[in-house]
Amino acid sequence: MDKPTLPKGTRDFGPAVMAKRQYILDAIRKVFQKFGFQPLETPAMENLSTLTGKYGEEGDQLLFKILNSGDFLKDVTTAKLETKNSKSITADISEKGLRYDLTVPFARYVVMNKHEIPTPFKRYQIQPVWRADRPQKGRYREFYQCDADVVGTDSLTCEAEIILMIREVFQSLNIEDYTIKINHRGVLTGLAELAGAKENQTALFVAIDKLDKIGEDKVKEELLGKGFSEKSIKTVFDILNFQGTTSQKVVFLNDQFTKSEAGDRGVSQLSAVLRLLRDYNSDDKHVEFDIALARGLSYYTGCIFEVKINNVSIGSVSGGGRYDNLTAAFGDKENLSGVGFSFGVDRLYDAMEELNLFPKEAQASTKILICHFDEETQRFGLKELSALRAAGISAEVYPDQSKMKKQLDYANKKMIPYAIVIGSEETKNGFLTFKNMETGEQEKLTVQQIIQKLKA
Amino acid sequence: MDKPTLPKGTRDFGPAVMAKRQYILDAIRKVFQKFGFQPLETPAMENLSTLTGKYGEEGDQLLFKILNSGDFLKDVTTAKLETKNSKSITADISEKGLRYDLTVPFARYVVMNKHEIPTPFKRYQIQPVWRADRPQKGRYREFYQCDADVVGTDSLTCEAEIILMIREVFQSLNIEDYTIKINHRGVLTGLAELAGAKENQTALFVAIDKLDKIGEDKVKEELLGKGFSEKSIKTVFDILNFQGTTSQKVVFLNDQFTKSEAGDRGVSQLSAVLRLLRDYNSDDKHVEFDIALARGLSYYTGCIFEVKINNVSIGSVSGGGRYDNLTAAFGDKENLSGVGFSFGVDRLYDAMEELNLFPKEAQASTKILICHFDEETQRFGLKELSALRAAGISAEVYPDQSKMKKQLDYANKKMIPYAIVIGSEETKNGFLTFKNMETGEQEKLTVQQIIQKLKA
Repeated sequence: MDKPTLPKGTRDFGPAVMAKRQYILDAIRKVFQKFGFQPLETPAMENLSTLTGKYGEEGDQLLFKILNSGDFLKDVTTAKLETKNSKSITADISEKGLRYDLTVPFARYVVMNKHEIPTPFKRYQIQPVWRADRPQKGRYREFYQCDADVVGTDSLTCEAEIILMIREVFQSLNIEDYTIKINHRGVLTGLAELAGAKENQTALFVAIDKLDKIGEDKVKEELLGKGFSEKSIKTVFDILNFQGTTSQKVVFLNDQFTKSEAGDRGVSQLSAVLRLLRDYNSDDKHVEFDIALARGLSYYTGCIFEVKINNVSIGSVSGGGRYDNLTAAFGDKENLSGVGFSFGVDRLYDAMEELNLFPKEAQASTKILICHFDEETQRFGLKELSALRAAGISAEVYPDQSKMKKQLDYANKKMIPYAIVIGSEETKNGFLTFKNMETGEQEKLTVQQIIQKLKA
Repeated sequence: MDKPTLPKGTRDFGPAVMAKRQYILDAIRKVFQKFGFQPLETPAMENLSTLTGKYGEEGDQLLFKILNSGDFLKDVTTAKLETKNSKSITADISEKGLRYDLTVPFARYVVMNKHEIPTPFKRYQIQPVWRADRPQKGRYREFYQCDADVVGTDSLTCEAEIILMIREVFQSLNIEDYTIKINHRGVLTGLAELAGAKENQTALFVAIDKLDKIGEDKVKEELLGKGFSEKSIKTVFDILNFQGTTSQKVVFLNDQFTKSEAGDRGVSQLSAVLRLLRDYNSDDKHVEFDIALARGLSYYTGCIFEVKINNVSIGSVSGGGRYDNLTAAFGDKENLSGVGFSFGVDRLYDAMEELNLFPKEAQASTKILICHFDEETQRFGLKELSALRAAGISAEVYPDQSKMKKQLDYANKKMIPYAIVIGSEETKNGFLTFKNMETGEQEKLTVQQIIQKLKA
């Protein structure tokens, strides 16, 4: 029999990786909840009618589709089968697909439950999504998304709170060197207007979005190719290259946008968000107004965010923005404005690994392993084990009668920081050998003394 | 456009349900970790070669299969397509399926990672599984399983700890009236031997397994139909109907099984587990030796468990047992004995709902909502909000300028227990109106006094 394998692009998360992932997700979840976001989970499978047409043609290709159960070919005509047209036959043999992101299921949920949910509705959702992408380094066919959105309000306190939440998550993960880039769709539109490119703004945003990756010269080349004049390109880059603090940029753009309604709206909303941060008794630390931030999606209508961890290989770990009409794709007529952001869990994981930020404690399974020399000493250890657990200390006993080395190896493999070794001596006087697995240090203590020590 | 729907047999878990589910899962996870179990997550999709043949023919039918990406019909001959034989064409157009349970992926993981994992390996896994079953009340096509297993040891401390873990989970969920039924595969074999039905034991176990559902008379009828003699049926029921405590049953069966090696092994292992519980400084509270417990699966080879919550409509919420050769289905030659159990999360949820055991606090999203009369009072409230959050209190501000009634309705809808109401008066003297949403009681307090009150 062949050794079993994993489907390509998928991963097992073993105990060591899971411990670190849970450390990240717990930190995020805790902050989401502290700020009033409530959890939602939707099914892995959605009707294809819910999913198709929401992610563009390329997205439709990347949906994983579920084969109908039973005799799925029964109602397909032989003539149609003979065409061997996979695309057109798909609809006959598959009516469900796997979740491609968390936004469309969220919108579907809101439409189906609009009369029951609180308004505004603050939800977070942490679940895997599936994409039939070509697997490559850092790109998987199954990966977690971790979204938080507020819908049903256009209050800019939501934007300010997104900044506060990102900072609180990073603080609890001990990530110190990072930048929250912020921009506004209106600022980008204003920029297009100044460049006389109002009709061609998508091409402009697409090009600008690549600045980070390909640099100024190549972006200029691309714009020339798309028919932008030298003059309008100069106008764009004079603005993009303005150097200054966030407040100085606000003042500078205010001057530029006197004739652009969109630009003016963008700058004043951004400055309102910054003022709100002060109202929150906070400041704009880590926040950088980045006029070039476009984040591809034409989807955003207000503020846009992107968070980069500095000095690591994959920097961008979070992003989001304000959008209009979350539920319009489902024919909903209410104009549900919302703002949301998401953390890239895999990228956060890689960055934290690179920065060596996972605390050892977060990776330990239990705190203490009880080791023994024979059945009698093991049985003696069981009541000590119960005493430890009753005190809230996670603990385990080595279950088999094995050599001491094997037992201690087990502790090391599970990163268990302490061991109690019980010999016949210990069963007589109640003083247990308490061993620090890292330093090798040993002392004789009663179980109560050990509990006190670990609780201190 | 039609209103979107959910695929049949699937569910959304909205905030209220999620809060309760998380309450259950957190309690379980905490106990698993306290006892040294480590988390594992496997992908939703597995190769069909991993899944098929593991769940019997019926199970194979119930696997959700993923349509291959791209031009999946390309390599299927027209002749084959013309047969319209769905079953045989499936293998050509689908190579992956959705996880059907957590045991097969676990076995696959162990085989693929046997040199890295600690031995014995204690893992827990809480993930959804998918079955193309006919949906009906209480039976879903997507549902969570919640498994814990130890493999690589036959120590009976594992069985004892399963009992301790179940009791600790139930204690933390405040479930008091329940029974942990325990039996041993050897006892069942011994019973078959006494009844002279060693060759026909599966039929005997299948019939006995239905005692709870169809009663003694019908089981006897079934056994007669399967060719059991009146005499052997009497032997079986004389033993099944023995009344007594767990220890009395042990003594009684010891006498019966003097000539049955399997029966003797079963009784002595059960009594060893009970003795171990005393070594753990515990007892056999809630434990009931149930000679009739068979749990269908021929899969088990040692102790078997089933947990019932008494006086609720669906009682059985947990079960498990010891098995041999977890990894044999993957051609692995090591004889990996293991013991595991799982909680039925949906059933636990229903039982707790029926017993009204979910604490209100577990369902609240935030602890406090800040309400206000206009933009100025809202902005004043933001620094109070930050103070509450800095003290670790989950809190939110109503984001829009809305009527007070609407703001308080929002708090009620989210089950937020307290509100702070800020008017212009409050912005001047710093004494905030602190309102208990349940009693309606109000007092004037500073934010520091509120923090002290909530922390107390």
